[in-house]
Amino acid sequence: MTQTLPGLMSHAPLLVSSLIDHAARHHRGGEIVSRLGDGSLHRYRYPDCRRRAMRLASALERSGVQPGTRVATIAWNGFRHLELYFGVGGMGAVCHTINPRLHPDQIAYIIRDAADQMVFFDVEFAGLVGEIAGLCPEVRHWVALCDAHEVPAGAKLPLESYEALLERGCEDYQWPVFDESAACGLCYTSGTTGQPKGVLYTNRSTVLHAYAASLPNAMNLSSHSVVMPVVPMFHVNAWGIPYAAPLNGAKLVLPGRMLDGASLHALIEAEGVTFAAGVPTIWLSLLEHVERNSGRFDALREAAIGGSACPVSMVDRFHALGVDVVHGWGMTETSPLGCLSRLSPGHTDLPLEERRRILQKQGHALFGIDMKIVDGRGAELPWDGRSFGDLMVRGPWVLERYYGADRPAGEGGWFATGDVATIDPGGAMQIMDRTKDIIKSGGEWISSIDVESIAMAHPDLLEAACIAAEHPKWGERPLLIAVARPGAEVSAGDVLRFFEGKAAKWWIPDEVVFVESLPHNATGKVQKRDLRERYAGLLA
Amino acid sequence: MTQTLPGLMSHAPLLVSSLIDHAARHHRGGEIVSRLGDGSLHRYRYPDCRRRAMRLASALERSGVQPGTRVATIAWNGFRHLELYFGVGGMGAVCHTINPRLHPDQIAYIIRDAADQMVFFDVEFAGLVGEIAGLCPEVRHWVALCDAHEVPAGAKLPLESYEALLERGCEDYQWPVFDESAACGLCYTSGTTGQPKGVLYTNRSTVLHAYAASLPNAMNLSSHSVVMPVVPMFHVNAWGIPYAAPLNGAKLVLPGRMLDGASLHALIEAEGVTFAAGVPTIWLSLLEHVERNSGRFDALREAAIGGSACPVSMVDRFHALGVDVVHGWGMTETSPLGCLSRLSPGHTDLPLEERRRILQKQGHALFGIDMKIVDGRGAELPWDGRSFGDLMVRGPWVLERYYGADRPAGEGGWFATGDVATIDPGGAMQIMDRTKDIIKSGGEWISSIDVESIAMAHPDLLEAACIAAEHPKWGERPLLIAVARPGAEVSAGDVLRFFEGKAAKWWIPDEVVFVESLPHNATGKVQKRDLRERYAGLLA
Repeated sequence: MTQTLPGLMSHAPLLVSSLIDHAARHHRGGEIVSRLGDGSLHRYRYPDCRRRAMRLASALERSGVQPGTRVATIAWNGFRHLELYFGVGGMGAVCHTINPRLHPDQIAYIIRDAADQMVFFDVEFAGLVGEIAGLCPEVRHWVALCDAHEVPAGAKLPLESYEALLERGCEDYQWPVFDESAACGLCYTSGTTGQPKGVLYTNRSTVLHAYAASLPNAMNLSSHSVVMPVVPMFHVNAWGIPYAAPLNGAKLVLPGRMLDGASLHALIEAEGVTFAAGVPTIWLSLLEHVERNSGRFDALREAAIGGSACPVSMVDRFHALGVDVVHGWGMTETSPLGCLSRLSPGHTDLPLEERRRILQKQGHALFGIDMKIVDGRGAELPWDGRSFGDLMVRGPWVLERYYGADRPAGEGGWFATGDVATIDPGGAMQIMDRTKDIIKSGGEWISSIDVESIAMAHPDLLEAACIAAEHPKWGERPLLIAVARPGAEVSAGDVLRFFEGKAAKWWIPDEVVFVESLPHNATGKVQKRDLRERYAGLLA
Repeated sequence: MTQTLPGLMSHAPLLVSSLIDHAARHHRGGEIVSRLGDGSLHRYRYPDCRRRAMRLASALERSGVQPGTRVATIAWNGFRHLELYFGVGGMGAVCHTINPRLHPDQIAYIIRDAADQMVFFDVEFAGLVGEIAGLCPEVRHWVALCDAHEVPAGAKLPLESYEALLERGCEDYQWPVFDESAACGLCYTSGTTGQPKGVLYTNRSTVLHAYAASLPNAMNLSSHSVVMPVVPMFHVNAWGIPYAAPLNGAKLVLPGRMLDGASLHALIEAEGVTFAAGVPTIWLSLLEHVERNSGRFDALREAAIGGSACPVSMVDRFHALGVDVVHGWGMTETSPLGCLSRLSPGHTDLPLEERRRILQKQGHALFGIDMKIVDGRGAELPWDGRSFGDLMVRGPWVLERYYGADRPAGEGGWFATGDVATIDPGGAMQIMDRTKDIIKSGGEWISSIDVESIAMAHPDLLEAACIAAEHPKWGERPLLIAVARPGAEVSAGDVLRFFEGKAAKWWIPDEVVFVESLPHNATGKVQKRDLRERYAGLLA
C-alpha cells in the first residue's frame, strides 16, 4: 500500500449510538409513531427513544449481555424494536433481526448459528417462540415486547416482559466508545439455496450507509420528512431507514403488522407520511385499495420501491396519484442500498414515456459504492446500456465475508451480486435478471424480469413469473406462469398477443400457464426455483 | 477501550479520488463553469475534470511529487484549482491552499513551514511569487495556472505553465488506494495572534464532511443544484463545496477573482445558480448592487453565510429578493462546517420576527459533530439558551492537532473554538462573541456581535464594530466604531437612540466613534485587535 503522510484530524469513530444522540439533542420534536398489535397508535419523541434505549443498554449489561453478544429480535416495525436497534448496537452488542416468516426450523438454525443469548419477540410470535425454544438451548432469556401484564399466559418457558427488563436499567447510563469496526447488526440472507448466511454490519458501515441514503439524490431525508418504512425492520434493517431517520430528525412512522392496503393508506394519511419504502407486492395492495376507493394521497410525495423489479404500470399508477416512484436496488450484503433511480437535470423535460423508461432502471450507485459488470471470465464490460454482465459492487457498506466464513466473499473487495445487469453510458444500472433466472435462448439472453414487467401491465393479470423451460432446439425458452385477476376471463393467446410490439419477437414466451397463485418466499419474492422444478419440462 | 466483535464489512477506504470518479461516472453531464482572469467563461464537465486531474497526478509523479509531498496553490476559484484538489489529493499528496491576501512574508513563512515542493499560482499572482520565491529556497517548481503562451514574461525564476506540465502526464493513470487517514489538504489559520498554524485534513475527514455538508438539513445539494462557492478555495477549501459538488453531481460555478456585486450578480443569473456561499461582506456588495439596480434573482434559492455573524438586516434583504439565508458556523479547524441554521418543522408557521430570530443563530450541529459549552473551569453548562460558555466541538472532521505540533490541540477530542456561545433547549447554538472580543461589564457579559448586528440595521451605517473599552466603574463598556454610508448625515446620538427598545439598556454602547473605514484581515474579518489598541482608552 502507498506510503502517505498521516493527516491530523480527530480519530472520533462512527458509532450508531451517535445517531440517536443527535436526534435527541437536535430534533427533540421529532416524533416516532408506532402502530401496535391492537391497532392503536403509540407516539413519543426522539429524546424518549434515546432515554429508553440507554436504559435498555444498562439493563442488558446487568443481564449479562456484553459487547459483541448477539441479541435477537423477532418483531414488526415498532418503537421497542427501534430501541433495540440503538440499545443493543449502542452498547457494542449485535442486534440480530430475524424474519418471522421463515420456517421455524430455519429460525432455530439461525439463532443457533448466530449464538444469540437473548431473543426479544412481539407477543404475536409467542406461539412461534414456543415451537423453537426447545431447539435453541443456548438462548438464556426470552423477552416479550410488551408490558408486564401483557406477557402471554401459558408459555412453556420462563418469559419476561420488555418493560419489566427496562425497569432494571438505570437512567444515567453512558454509551461506551469503541472502534467503529465493531459489529452492531446481523441479518441473514433469505437463502434460496443452502442455509441462510449471516451478514455482520459494523457501526461504520451502518453510519456511512445512513449518510449516503439520506442525500438529496437518494432518499432525500430532512427534519421535514415523515418517513414510513413498510419494509420490515427484520429485512436488511428496513433499508437503513431506522438509522437514517434520526440522523436527519425525520418523523418516523412504524406500521407494525397491519400491512394491508386499507391500514397503510389510513396511516399514511393520518400521519402525513411524505416518503414510504416497500416492496412491489405491498404497493400493489395499497394501490388496489386507493384506486378502488377513489382515495388520494395528501402528503405522500415519494414511494421507494426495492426488493424486486418495479413493474412499469406501478410507476404510472403512483404518478396518477401525485406520487413519484424512487426505484432502488440492493441486497442484504449491501446494507442494502446500492443504487437509486432519480431523474437527472437533463431528464426533467423528457416525454413521460422516456422518463418512465429511465425510472424503470435501478439507477445510479450511491456515492460510496463502486460497480462494474463483467463477463464469464471476469473481464469488465462496457457501460453501453446493451452489454449484459454479472454485476459486481464494492464499497464501505458491502459485505467482506459472511458470518463464520473463513475467507472473503469476493476478490479485491468486489462482491458478485448474482444479478445480471447493463449499465448505460450515463452510469444508470439496470438489473436484467438474477444470474440463475435469466433465459438462455439460442445463445442470446432473455430477461425474465422484462417479460414479467410487460405481462404485469396486462389488465387481467394479477401476477406473473417467467421461467426458463427446456427446449429441444433453443436450449431454453421463456414460459410464463400467470395468475388471472379474480373474475377476469383471459386466455394464453390474449396474453401472448399483448406482447406484440412491446418486446422483441424472440422474447415472447412460448406458452402461458395459468395458476391459482404463485409461491413466495419469506421476503415476498416469487420462488422461481419451485416453478422451474414443476414446469421446466413443459416445452421439452 | 471496550472489546467488541469486529464486523465483517468491506474495509474500503474513504478517498477524495472517489468523489471525482463518482461525478464522472454518474453525473457526466454536470458542468463546471469558471470565470477566468480576463472575464471570459471556461466550461467543461466532470469527466473532463477527472481526466485532467488524473493526467495531473501522473505529471506530478513524473516531476518527483510523492505521496505525502506538499503542493501549494495560490489561486482563485477556477477549474485548474479544482483539478489540483483532486489530482494532488487523489495521488496521496497534500494540496496546500494559500491565501494570497496574506502578507508576502507570512506566505513565505507558510510555504517554508509546510515544506511545499511545488507552488501553483494564478498569473495575477506572478508579482507576489517574484517577491517570495527568494524566501522559499526549497520550492523546486513554480507553475503558472495558464497555457504555455500565457506564462508571465520577465519572471526572475524559471516558470512552467500548468498546461505544459499536464502534457507530460499520461491518460491511463490509476488512482492509488491507501489508508483514509492519509492527508489530502492543508490550510493555515489566519492567525490573529502568533504565526499561522496548519490544519492537515485527511481523506476521511474530507469525505465525511462532504457527506454531512450535502444533507438536506445542511447545504441540500443534488444533481439539480447549481452551486457557486464565492468563498475562496484558499479559505478552508471553500467550505468543502469543491468536494461536495461532485459527490452529488451538482453544477459548479467558480467565480474567479471578480467578486464585486455586479460581476457576481451577472454570473449568478447567467448560470442559474441556486445556492451560493460566502461571507457577509461579499453579500453586502451583492445586495447593494441588486437593490440599486432593481435587479432580481431568478434561480437563486439560498445564500449560505458564514465566516462571521450574519446581520439581521441581511436575512430580510435576501428574503425580499426571494432568497433564504442559511447561516453557518465553522472554522479552519472544523473543515469548516460545524453548525447550520435552518427552520425546523415547528418553525415554519412562526411570525417573520420569530423566524428571523431563529435564523440569526448558528444553528444545529451537523450529524457527526458533538458540541458543548463550558464555564471557566471546564464544567458543562446547560442548554437553556441563556448560559454563555466557551464552545467546544469534536467529531471526525475536527482537528486533532496542528501541523508540526507534538500534542493534541484539545483534551478528550474536544477542541476549544475560542467562541463564546449559548445553546438553546432545542440544540440551536448561537455565537455570542469571540472569547477575546466579549465585553465584560460589571460582571455581566455583553456580546459585541449583538451590538454590531443592531447597529448594522441602521440605514445610515455601512459597517460597525463594537469593542471593549476600559471603564473606571464597570471594568469594560461597549464602544461602537462606525462607518457612515456615503452622503449620509448621522450623529452618535442618532445611532444610540436607534438602540432603544432593541437591546437591554446596559448593552447600549457608551459612545460612537465615526471612522472612514474599518481595518480587515486577509479573510475579510474586522481586525478588532487593531481597534482595541487604538480606542480602548477612550472611556477611561
